[in-house]
Amino acid sequence: MTKWVYSFGAGHNEGRADMNNLLGGKGANLAEMASIGLPVPPGFTITTEVCTAFYENSRRYPDGLDAEVGTALSQVEKAVGRKFGEAKNPLLVSVRSGARVSMPGMMDTVLNLGLNDQTVEGLAKAANDPRFAWDSYRRFIQMYGSVVLGIDHHKFEEIIDHTKLEADVTEDTALTAQAWQRVVEAYKDLVQHDTGKPFPQQPHEQLWGAIGAVFGSWMNHRAITYRKLHDIPADWGTAVNVQTMVYGNMGDDCATGVCFTRDPSTGENAFYGEYLVNAQGEDVVAGIRTPQPVSKANAKAGETPMEVVMPEAYRDLLRVRETLEQHYRDMQDLEFTVQQNKLYMLQTRNGKRTTAASLKMAVDMAREGLIDEAEAVRRVNASSLDQLLHPTLDPKAPRTLLARGLPASPGAASGAVVFSADEAESRAQKGEAIILVRIETSPEDIHGMHAARGILTTRGGMTSHAAVVARGMGRPCVAGASEVSVDYNAQTLTAAGRTVHDGDVITLDGATGEVFLGTVAMIEPAMSKDFATLMGWADKARRLGVRANAETPLDAETARKFGAEGIGLSRTEHMFFDPKRIGAVRQMIMASNEAGRRAALARLLPFQRDDFRELFTIMAGLPVTIRLLDPPLHEFLPHSDVEMEEVAEGLGTDVATIRRRAAELAEANPMLGHRGCRLGISFPEIYEMQARAIFEGALAVAMESGKPPHPEIMIPLIATRRELEITRAQVDQVAQAVFAENGRKIEYSVGTMIELPRAALVADRIAELADFFSFGTNDLTQTVFGLSRDDAGKFLPRYVEAGILPKDPFVSIDAEGVGEMMRIGAERGRSVKNNLKLGICGEHGGDPASITLCEKLGLDYVSCSPYRVPVARLAAAQAALGVEADRTA
Amino acid sequence: MTKWVYSFGAGHNEGRADMNNLLGGKGANLAEMASIGLPVPPGFTITTEVCTAFYENSRRYPDGLDAEVGTALSQVEKAVGRKFGEAKNPLLVSVRSGARVSMPGMMDTVLNLGLNDQTVEGLAKAANDPRFAWDSYRRFIQMYGSVVLGIDHHKFEEIIDHTKLEADVTEDTALTAQAWQRVVEAYKDLVQHDTGKPFPQQPHEQLWGAIGAVFGSWMNHRAITYRKLHDIPADWGTAVNVQTMVYGNMGDDCATGVCFTRDPSTGENAFYGEYLVNAQGEDVVAGIRTPQPVSKANAKAGETPMEVVMPEAYRDLLRVRETLEQHYRDMQDLEFTVQQNKLYMLQTRNGKRTTAASLKMAVDMAREGLIDEAEAVRRVNASSLDQLLHPTLDPKAPRTLLARGLPASPGAASGAVVFSADEAESRAQKGEAIILVRIETSPEDIHGMHAARGILTTRGGMTSHAAVVARGMGRPCVAGASEVSVDYNAQTLTAAGRTVHDGDVITLDGATGEVFLGTVAMIEPAMSKDFATLMGWADKARRLGVRANAETPLDAETARKFGAEGIGLSRTEHMFFDPKRIGAVRQMIMASNEAGRRAALARLLPFQRDDFRELFTIMAGLPVTIRLLDPPLHEFLPHSDVEMEEVAEGLGTDVATIRRRAAELAEANPMLGHRGCRLGISFPEIYEMQARAIFEGALAVAMESGKPPHPEIMIPLIATRRELEITRAQVDQVAQAVFAENGRKIEYSVGTMIELPRAALVADRIAELADFFSFGTNDLTQTVFGLSRDDAGKFLPRYVEAGILPKDPFVSIDAEGVGEMMRIGAERGRSVKNNLKLGICGEHGGDPASITLCEKLGLDYVSCSPYRVPVARLAAAQAALGVEADRTA
Repeated sequence: MTKWVYSFGAGHNEGRADMNNLLGGKGANLAEMASIGLPVPPGFTITTEVCTAFYENSRRYPDGLDAEVGTALSQVEKAVGRKFGEAKNPLLVSVRSGARVSMPGMMDTVLNLGLNDQTVEGLAKAANDPRFAWDSYRRFIQMYGSVVLGIDHHKFEEIIDHTKLEADVTEDTALTAQAWQRVVEAYKDLVQHDTGKPFPQQPHEQLWGAIGAVFGSWMNHRAITYRKLHDIPADWGTAVNVQTMVYGNMGDDCATGVCFTRDPSTGENAFYGEYLVNAQGEDVVAGIRTPQPVSKANAKAGETPMEVVMPEAYRDLLRVRETLEQHYRDMQDLEFTVQQNKLYMLQTRNGKRTTAASLKMAVDMAREGLIDEAEAVRRVNASSLDQLLHPTLDPKAPRTLLARGLPASPGAASGAVVFSADEAESRAQKGEAIILVRIETSPEDIHGMHAARGILTTRGGMTSHAAVVARGMGRPCVAGASEVSVDYNAQTLTAAGRTVHDGDVITLDGATGEVFLGTVAMIEPAMSKDFATLMGWADKARRLGVRANAETPLDAETARKFGAEGIGLSRTEHMFFDPKRIGAVRQMIMASNEAGRRAALARLLPFQRDDFRELFTIMAGLPVTIRLLDPPLHEFLPHSDVEMEEVAEGLGTDVATIRRRAAELAEANPMLGHRGCRLGISFPEIYEMQARAIFEGALAVAMESGKPPHPEIMIPLIATRRELEITRAQVDQVAQAVFAENGRKIEYSVGTMIELPRAALVADRIAELADFFSFGTNDLTQTVFGLSRDDAGKFLPRYVEAGILPKDPFVSIDAEGVGEMMRIGAERGRSVKNNLKLGICGEHGGDPASITLCEKLGLDYVSCSPYRVPVARLAAAQAALGVEADRTA
Repeated sequence: MTKWVYSFGAGHNEGRADMNNLLGGKGANLAEMASIGLPVPPGFTITTEVCTAFYENSRRYPDGLDAEVGTALSQVEKAVGRKFGEAKNPLLVSVRSGARVSMPGMMDTVLNLGLNDQTVEGLAKAANDPRFAWDSYRRFIQMYGSVVLGIDHHKFEEIIDHTKLEADVTEDTALTAQAWQRVVEAYKDLVQHDTGKPFPQQPHEQLWGAIGAVFGSWMNHRAITYRKLHDIPADWGTAVNVQTMVYGNMGDDCATGVCFTRDPSTGENAFYGEYLVNAQGEDVVAGIRTPQPVSKANAKAGETPMEVVMPEAYRDLLRVRETLEQHYRDMQDLEFTVQQNKLYMLQTRNGKRTTAASLKMAVDMAREGLIDEAEAVRRVNASSLDQLLHPTLDPKAPRTLLARGLPASPGAASGAVVFSADEAESRAQKGEAIILVRIETSPEDIHGMHAARGILTTRGGMTSHAAVVARGMGRPCVAGASEVSVDYNAQTLTAAGRTVHDGDVITLDGATGEVFLGTVAMIEPAMSKDFATLMGWADKARRLGVRANAETPLDAETARKFGAEGIGLSRTEHMFFDPKRIGAVRQMIMASNEAGRRAALARLLPFQRDDFRELFTIMAGLPVTIRLLDPPLHEFLPHSDVEMEEVAEGLGTDVATIRRRAAELAEANPMLGHRGCRLGISFPEIYEMQARAIFEGALAVAMESGKPPHPEIMIPLIATRRELEITRAQVDQVAQAVFAENGRKIEYSVGTMIELPRAALVADRIAELADFFSFGTNDLTQTVFGLSRDDAGKFLPRYVEAGILPKDPFVSIDAEGVGEMMRIGAERGRSVKNNLKLGICGEHGGDPASITLCEKLGLDYVSCSPYRVPVARLAAAQAALGVEADRTA
């Protein structure tokens, strides 16, 4: 037979901490604390299974529950020597909900349950304090009335206000026992009026009313919404905890408080908490009186720390702190009550903490021997690690919200608004802090993005150009802020009814996607020693390699600084946009024949060779994966009339010709167009030039440094084996030629992106010719889903909100679809070449959930933005340690 | 030990017709003819394996070949009583190549081999005809010189011309024995001069020279190119046939000819052929003399049929015709020689024929009992069946080619060029034959396309809008003719240096993609009784159902006429472009809220209801699959300024508003954008209106006809199970509402397109909610390949030309990639619902190779353009009969 009720306290501890699923977090930990000898007022927990059975059985309680509750209650009565409902010295209880995870949407707490017109008198006598008794009774009616009977909370407040007015006092504490008694009468009238029934006087009726309210609140609107948002299954249910009341409000030798075993904000190993003398729990929350610090160390002048006021109870509390940390091996968040100088524990749970604190605690606890290094690695949320690498807004700083967009690149920045890349650059050169605001960005804006402190766009998603480039550069970015409308002509942006002009200051929070008016104070990041220590432990734990996506020397250096083990993606086209080169690129595009293209490419060759030489030098022997030209050629052509004229002049042709060529190259769906290896096959001279630049650059570094680099040349957008065969042959041929010219060879690999479903499906055939695969999960997501990342903003956010998709698949790899396509690709590829090196590059490479998937698929490495490298290292370690990435991250 | 040489004739028949792979087509059939007692001059075949061994072994012949050739040659000598190389009455032979399939790129034939300065005298004496002997010798040197020794063929012609000039005659036949002897001397000098060696006098050297030339020609440039184009593996190799010469040039009782056992052009069961008296085979080809008909029935006045001239040999030939048709059970293409009134057979093979002929022969032969019905079904090339349903250009008509494009929709049409849909309509209404010329077409051009006789576009591929719509309407279309440049302002098109003005006449051949200047004479199609008969047999043989893609009543009627078993795809958006409705559609798009959209949709409802009522009525109980709105909304907005103004006025708004809305809706990659079920989820009222129109229309038909239709409602662009869950629930809810309002129910199904890789990957989960799947292979090809069909024209043709892809994947499903994705989808779908109905709709549904794939995947039906239905029925039958679809079709 199912057991529905578990007792705790007074030697009857039927639960344990690991029975969280059955007893809820609160119930399980109450039992645990009681069984390790901590002072827990006795009580019992009605299990989550009762909740589930209740809903499965048309809101009827399971058979036998009534009897079990009765038995448990008798045990409590026996233990404390009082009886529930007995007029003289009655047993009072609290009733609290307690799900597996804390859920704000639900009924929380009813205190002082068991009071009625008789027992209040008994309590007054027993405590020898009528004021305490009537205050407790009115508290009970007030809580029960609002959370169980659904009476508007303000109506109770009004009665108190009215009573205070009558008594001509301003503070609750100034009300006498008689006044509270009048309040009780008025409360009872209110209940009668609003519910049509008198306030229940029967303690058992009160108890079942409160239990019913807890179970009922599991299905209220707020709780359902909260569960949906946090992906909590409805069938988890909630437990109900019924516990002997202890009183923090019985006099000045009583108190109630909340504390943390270490500082939740810094992580320091210091006791941290607040308490109120002569109060019940809700007073701390209500904010009517200002709580005082528990410890002297935290006390400011004029404050009255518990350590001083109640030294004995404080000493007990310190012992509890010690015991609980040793026992749970983690920082605890405690609730306690002191009744007549005796300490009682009402709750413990793992405390929430900032990322900085979680890092410090993890490292400290590992050093203290409380946990091992692997556990320390598990403790820090990989997704939030980013916060430590970027400036963040000071949480206490005042701010005026202007708009919200997507949190596209973390960090915060303030600066003057400008609307063009050129202006961003010129004003930044004069030392101004600039925020570049664009409807969307294109590769031609890169210099402006680089010059800006932060980037705001009104269109595009998490993998829009702006987002990708900003993350790569480590610039904060808010993307797709569709509430903001930008008027380039007027040089203004408008949002929330306010107009911001060119030069006005705004602040971006790239971690939340918020945009604020004016400057908001910030906290600068500090990469602590602890950070390095934890990264070291993570590196020991992980199996996956971590590389960075980098093209520029700066990116490459940042990547190394953050511990990247090589470059997993170097997008050669990013190098094409440099003002010194774009002319030659356009000359190539405009050329009417191969000879013309070759002439233009010959101009580009020395630039590209230098690019690679620098990269190889910086990466000093680490692998460098270079992707040959990928985007369609029209991306390199100018767009505006003015630019077209400039380009026409530069190329010695007319605008009409440029325009015609642009029209010829225009594509209905550029994502699915003439790009990637299709360009390399149409215009072999392009890939030939790039291959030559790579090999010549690598040979130069081999000579200079004596350390021959190992270039990994990656062919994009392969769909068929034959495409790789043709392009690989081009590369091999150039390699042989360059080696012959120089009388020297180096090792190199040629591999392919797997970024089209077809490539994954025929991965066995492609693997015969590939030294490695790199899953291009951005494009794979676009094609597997039939979802353009540039356009998805129109409906994808709503899809995620409505739960049609659990997450934006451009942020976290869609495991069911895209992940399955990767699995097929990996499996088929390795079926013919079991040591085939597999990696991913692109935006997902820095996402913990995606990294977990990569670990499961047996990939060899991930590659991500330089600034995400630490996140990836930690996430890779956690994946290896079997931590499931945070669902809601 | 491998046998390298197979004898035939004179009772030594070591080969058979089914040894085609080993002996080549010619050799196998020579042996077969000889063994069924037909008069075949004895000889032997050197196998294709010798060719393969030759190339595998650095161009050395296998051991033992020499001896086997010697033995076979001795047998021939014994059989004919003459000896090879013997001066008196020498044995002469022909040497011919003979691969598995006829290959124009290779060495063909050397006749009269064995002649030299001695044997020519012997031949002269034995034949008692010196002129014949010297003519034969010069023929030998000429053929051997050009095909074996590689001497330019014109140099031999010049010598004959010079000799005729000296002799003052104009015809070859007027040259005497002495003159031919002089020609021989001059030929020998030419050989000496060009090769530096005398013409080989040793008959065995001649023989091995010719054999070597045949094997060598297998790897010449032309042969390699031909094999690549026709997908013939190099390792098939060629055989060499060495055969006793018989002489058609020994006098007027000799002749040579070629004939077909039935008329290859009409298929009629009439003997059809040509011959030349006193000639060798190459004379028929050379065209110096005009060949005469073999039969009296084919002779025109003044012609001298063989039936009259050589009645005995003709009678023998008729018997051979009879024997071979009975034996091979197919129309044969014969080569014969008559030597002194005796008939010799030199070749037989299945004759090439027109599509009309193949149809007639197949049906006739089945009726004659020569073959069974299934074989008749196998005999007709499904791809070419199209020709019988459309007018075709008269092959004999003169023509001036203007340009080439893609053969986008079959049939031919002439008409006056116009450049806009409106003009096409207005001029067509006046009775003019119109060819609509557009850079590309859009849904707004449909009325003009309908009004035109044919459509020419300069952009877009086989599945561009123009191509798809033209095929659906049965209009000829040449698409993507990129050599043509269109100037809308000047109202001209320019190609091949010529300018065609508005109103000038051009002719399109939609089956070849050619565009001609002016009018070209045409042949009208006639759907014969035989066609119906064959279709009936095909229907008995096939397993796959065949449906049509149809929206309009006309399409639906055409579909039924061609035997469609229902509608597999009705694209509701095509109904939105009707001028009466587009206003309401645009009103919906411009609406700023749901109420506005609902108001506009309420205006569309009666139209859609009538659409469906008509479709259901025409289809009379056959299944009708209706796809809910699929394309992105911006497709329905106007593009030009004039149109925008009109629309703004119509909607009571301004152009700026329209333009802003258009900009809001614009997409970077519309193919991957806000379309399909994503629209249905964003704006549920659209699918609700459509579902209501379907159910109300269906109920109306059920009442009117007593035959309740069975609508199959298809949700497009499903990527996740949840999307289908949401949209299916919408449809079911509307169904219940409409049924309740009418007090009557009908059966219906709800299914989904599988057109995204993700849908195929999670087909098991989707199948739980789907009554059927229809593979949308157009979009699946786009996403699996990452290939936009609108843009692929820029490189796809080159890919196909260069053999990177065997075929345009928009024409024939890419079996390796897209087919594999379908296999995964079908398998996973049926893993949870083993009777899940599976079909395909879209352009591939009418392609025989794709239909073969569908048969292999176990699909239930294909759906295609109405005009492709007969092709699909035949192809489905052939697929069921295990015929491999023509690779090069």
